[in-house]
Amino acid sequence: MTTSKLAGLARPAKKARLFGERVSDGRTMARLVMKFGGTSVADVDCIRNVARHVKREVDAGNQVAVVVSAMAGTTNQLVAWTREASPLHDAREYDTVVSAGEQVTSGLLAIALQDMGVNARSWLGWQVPIRADAAHGAARIDHIDGSVLIERMDDHGQVAVVAGFQGVGPDNRVATFGRGGSDTTAVALAAAIGADRCDIYTDVDGVYTTDPRIVPKAGRMPRISFEEMLEMASLGAKVLQVRSVQTAMVHGVRVFVRSSFADPQSLETPGTDSPVGTLICDEEEIVEQKVVTGIAYSKDEAEISLRRVADKPGVAAAVFMPLAAANINVDMIVQNISEDGSLTDMTFTVPIVDFERAQEVLAGARETVGYQAINGSTDVAKVSIIGVGMRSHAGVAAEAFEALAGRGINIRAITTSEIKISMLIDASYTELAVRTLHSLYGLDEN
Amino acid sequence: MTTSKLAGLARPAKKARLFGERVSDGRTMARLVMKFGGTSVADVDCIRNVARHVKREVDAGNQVAVVVSAMAGTTNQLVAWTREASPLHDAREYDTVVSAGEQVTSGLLAIALQDMGVNARSWLGWQVPIRADAAHGAARIDHIDGSVLIERMDDHGQVAVVAGFQGVGPDNRVATFGRGGSDTTAVALAAAIGADRCDIYTDVDGVYTTDPRIVPKAGRMPRISFEEMLEMASLGAKVLQVRSVQTAMVHGVRVFVRSSFADPQSLETPGTDSPVGTLICDEEEIVEQKVVTGIAYSKDEAEISLRRVADKPGVAAAVFMPLAAANINVDMIVQNISEDGSLTDMTFTVPIVDFERAQEVLAGARETVGYQAINGSTDVAKVSIIGVGMRSHAGVAAEAFEALAGRGINIRAITTSEIKISMLIDASYTELAVRTLHSLYGLDEN
Repeated sequence: MTTSKLAGLARPAKKARLFGERVSDGRTMARLVMKFGGTSVADVDCIRNVARHVKREVDAGNQVAVVVSAMAGTTNQLVAWTREASPLHDAREYDTVVSAGEQVTSGLLAIALQDMGVNARSWLGWQVPIRADAAHGAARIDHIDGSVLIERMDDHGQVAVVAGFQGVGPDNRVATFGRGGSDTTAVALAAAIGADRCDIYTDVDGVYTTDPRIVPKAGRMPRISFEEMLEMASLGAKVLQVRSVQTAMVHGVRVFVRSSFADPQSLETPGTDSPVGTLICDEEEIVEQKVVTGIAYSKDEAEISLRRVADKPGVAAAVFMPLAAANINVDMIVQNISEDGSLTDMTFTVPIVDFERAQEVLAGARETVGYQAINGSTDVAKVSIIGVGMRSHAGVAAEAFEALAGRGINIRAITTSEIKISMLIDASYTELAVRTLHSLYGLDEN
Repeated sequence: MTTSKLAGLARPAKKARLFGERVSDGRTMARLVMKFGGTSVADVDCIRNVARHVKREVDAGNQVAVVVSAMAGTTNQLVAWTREASPLHDAREYDTVVSAGEQVTSGLLAIALQDMGVNARSWLGWQVPIRADAAHGAARIDHIDGSVLIERMDDHGQVAVVAGFQGVGPDNRVATFGRGGSDTTAVALAAAIGADRCDIYTDVDGVYTTDPRIVPKAGRMPRISFEEMLEMASLGAKVLQVRSVQTAMVHGVRVFVRSSFADPQSLETPGTDSPVGTLICDEEEIVEQKVVTGIAYSKDEAEISLRRVADKPGVAAAVFMPLAAANINVDMIVQNISEDGSLTDMTFTVPIVDFERAQEVLAGARETVGYQAINGSTDVAKVSIIGVGMRSHAGVAAEAFEALAGRGINIRAITTSEIKISMLIDASYTELAVRTLHSLYGLDEN
């Protein structure tokens, strides 16, 4: 998603609001996007609970747009039907079928809101409109025209209930955004209508310092920066899809992750005191920044080693070009210096789903590369340390290597970025490594 | 539905086709609309069967547009959800929810057709567009723009798979056409694209001379005129909705009712020889016209009698104006001459669902009407004889009265039109009356 393509998402009227336009009855109004996932709208009772969450914000004087997913299970059923009709289905027809799920939820939520006396109406992707590109099945948002929604909010206090996951393509047909696309709809919509915050209601109450199933002492982070959240999401934290975090970061949309299963009436609007959830925001908004914010892990990668490759210019290209041509992403790369200085071992990781295919591609490229053998393993895990504080703190990596070595954990490969260190280890040590690092950087709660 | 509002449905290029433009490979091509109801698309296997029907017509060199209903049961589920969300739901939101059913089927059928090598794409109401009026939940079609569909047929032989039951209202929101609305979509679409025929595939193989559950010797009519079919549909033959027959009559769309459950490969395209189904067409197309075409019956009416009403000008208005104001349709009306010539009994029928309400309205109007008592009964049936041949044959009614009298059946009220005689009788005699009339007019098959 490039900035130029997203010109239409630029936050409107930002300046005006700083001068306090949105004050009503002495209270400061906020403009909010609230997004509810499939388990939050699983049946009509759940939808009514969602309506109570929305009503709470409306009663507090806020302007609200809601984005909804399909009822849990619906999308799977619709996808299964398209596959049953043909394993090689037309993505445009897939989109027509699958987008029906969010359509149903948006109408039902509008009805439930009206039933509670809240002025509301549903909006399908083509009605807003949410303009998408032509990549049916995994389309990207080009432009959202938020003007009519804003007008309805300003003039009638009307709540917009927007069907997530769908837009309209340049061919005037429904285009869906791929799994997790409703999050992206919510964040992009928040940018388009200049919302103060995008609240993602989900089945967890925030983003944790690591997976609480592995580290019971993992704590909910009150705040996390866009950059850190992007790394967390890329590395397997399932709370938000990567694309929605990217969109939030590009447009500076503050995203608040919170639970939809708490009692709507007892929930406070998050402030500085005790917000229940995690705010994803600019680094500047985070006062007490720790060096390390979280520990992530992923078992979605596989390791491939090419033994005794010629150590000469052009050999890396000979290895990685055919993989790129086959659309296989290579992540971590390690090249060992061989004993005699002329031959080397080359180790790298690929997504585990591409493991077999990657080996086939490399077998086909054996002549040009000239390696002696291929070894591979899916029995590896990538453990990562994330924190924007690492930018200004040296020695974080060294501490991590030392701590893992102290536990007898061998590091097979390393990649680093400004705010992340990832280490490839044997999968069986995953939990031990995560716990060790979580303690090391002071993330354990008492 | 007025003719002026439907200007957009006028059949295009009719003249051109008479000069043989649509001839390909030496065969005469036809342009067809094929409509499949909910039981015909109940699951993906059924949808694949529908695709085979469509492919048969495409392979025969025809241009095809298909109209589909929602999968059987889907619409009921969606309607139930809207009611669960609120008993008093917004009709616009109802339409958003309920139209999702046809959307799913249209996409799935397009996929199934493509899987068989047929060029096909789905069209939602707003994409065609099918423009509807603002009466959400029971909207009427204002205009269908068939130009793009025709272009795709002419240029690419593409099959249009159109979601039935839905259009787009003047408010740019989805509008549905009420139950049976997919039939109307099909007929109106046939008019808009100048189709040679609209094939309605259903779970019966045609229109019968009467209900075969009552008269096992009832026969399938090979042809029936628009006017007769309109009477049959109005009187309870459930094969087609009244509105779709009206639309067909106004625009001269030939409608062929046939079964979707026969083997698609063994079905012949209907010709003059042995078409399996019933063709609804202009009277002129029916060569051997019988005097009576069919016998219909309905138990959906109730009888109300006002005893000892003043026999003076204005009293009928005093009775029927308040009923009309309450939106209650009065059908059969009988006024008896009373003994002393100044007071009369007035008997009429109303829809059985309005029976209680009609009595309340009349009780409220008692002062202005000045009747002595109200009597009512729901235990009545209306039996009707239908046939355009009655226009030129006197004595049909007399024969019917005589035959029923011969069976001891009392006729409580009578209404006639040019092509129909309806008689109100005690409900317990319904089957006997239908059988008697079916035999009387020579409709029993050997």
